Amino acid sequence: MLSDEPLEKVLPPYNLEVVRGIRHFIVENVRSARRFLKKCDRSINIDELTFYTLDEHTKPEEITDYLNPLMAGEPMGVISEAGCPAIADPGADVVAMAQSRGLKVVPLVGPSSILMSLMASGFNGQSFAFQGYLPIEAGKRTKKLHEMERAIAGGQTQIFIETPYRNNKLIAELCATLRSDLRLCVACNITGNDETILTRTIREWGKMSYNFDKRPAIFLLYR
Amino acid sequence: MLSDEPLEKVLPPYNLEVVRGIRHFIVENVRSARRFLKKCDRSINIDELTFYTLDEHTKPEEITDYLNPLMAGEPMGVISEAGCPAIADPGADVVAMAQSRGLKVVPLVGPSSILMSLMASGFNGQSFAFQGYLPIEAGKRTKKLHEMERAIAGGQTQIFIETPYRNNKLIAELCATLRSDLRLCVACNITGNDETILTRTIREWGKMSYNFDKRPAIFLLYR
Repeated sequence: MLSDEPLEKVLPPYNLEVVRGIRHFIVENVRSARRFLKKCDRSINIDELTFYTLDEHTKPEEITDYLNPLMAGEPMGVISEAGCPAIADPGADVVAMAQSRGLKVVPLVGPSSILMSLMASGFNGQSFAFQGYLPIEAGKRTKKLHEMERAIAGGQTQIFIETPYRNNKLIAELCATLRSDLRLCVACNITGNDETILTRTIREWGKMSYNFDKRPAIFLLYR
Repeated sequence: MLSDEPLEKVLPPYNLEVVRGIRHFIVENVRSARRFLKKCDRSINIDELTFYTLDEHTKPEEITDYLNPLMAGEPMGVISEAGCPAIADPGADVVAMAQSRGLKVVPLVGPSSILMSLMASGFNGQSFAFQGYLPIEAGKRTKKLHEMERAIAGGQTQIFIETPYRNNKLIAELCATLRSDLRLCVACNITGNDETILTRTIREWGKMSYNFDKRPAIFLLYR
């Protein structure tokens, strides 16, 4: 997990200990991973580390060799950009490969906007679904929103994300499409100094003024 | 979050700072919350703190006064037993009440077996559903498993839990009911010294020997 927050706000000290013992990292972006590692420990010699890129452009056939150090007994780390590796972020492919080869996989505690927003929303945490991005095409999008309404009627909290420059448009669209008594939670810049987590009814959102333009946000719906 | 793990393994230092500034706690169990707070900081004077119980026996009408200190401007904390407050653990009701009264809710980073097991499973983290406990009644249970199979075919990872003494029975049942090429991840004692997170096909689980009896586990299914 990479963010501008002080590490002591978002990561257990144990993670830094683990990081110090690793020389091979699978990363979403090499530059920001280097910056993150320097932030973990200024004394880490970045030039002794090996980085393997895993982003949305990486092809499955490129990663088959990535786990060679791990197969040879050396620990490896996976670092993603905004969230937890392998959750709405790259990483699942190498983890699946490690599992299928019988290698040990150890998750570390870190901030997840999905879980943190759910905790702060007041919505059902016994049953919930993360839907990723909504479809872009208008017909499919409306269909998805109505599917989500039905799942909410069955008691399942719905969680989804949007490209940040479309946040305000999405909220207006939800207000125009959904039942006015449903509740919408918008969680913006979680763990940041300007963190905002607001649960209001669709009716209330329709009358409120808000501006989440270009800020990372996550959306939750419940009855 | 309460566990036997050293706090530096599972909580950011910031959480302990926050805890030191709080005198009113809404807790699932007063005794273990006291023990947890002493572990956070031995110098905390527990006798100066006020505890409000929120567990599965608490009735909605009992909690209406719980947030009075917060409404009067004093910070309050929510502490649950095994996982994150309000996620497969009590807490959502007071959070919902705080949101509806316009009070600020701040989630803290901590270990979640749901997110950690998903990260380590190698399964799809762009789309997933947490289903809580499966129905106990045989007909409903089989129906639920087949619904989950259909959701997996649509690309959604399925996550659920079981009462620990039934873990082994559940795995045998999954092997008898589900398509043999689906993958099952069993994550047991996450963050513990004997943490085990194994992803294998249903076919492989059917042939393996395992014993997760009476240990906290979480189950994930994907294609």
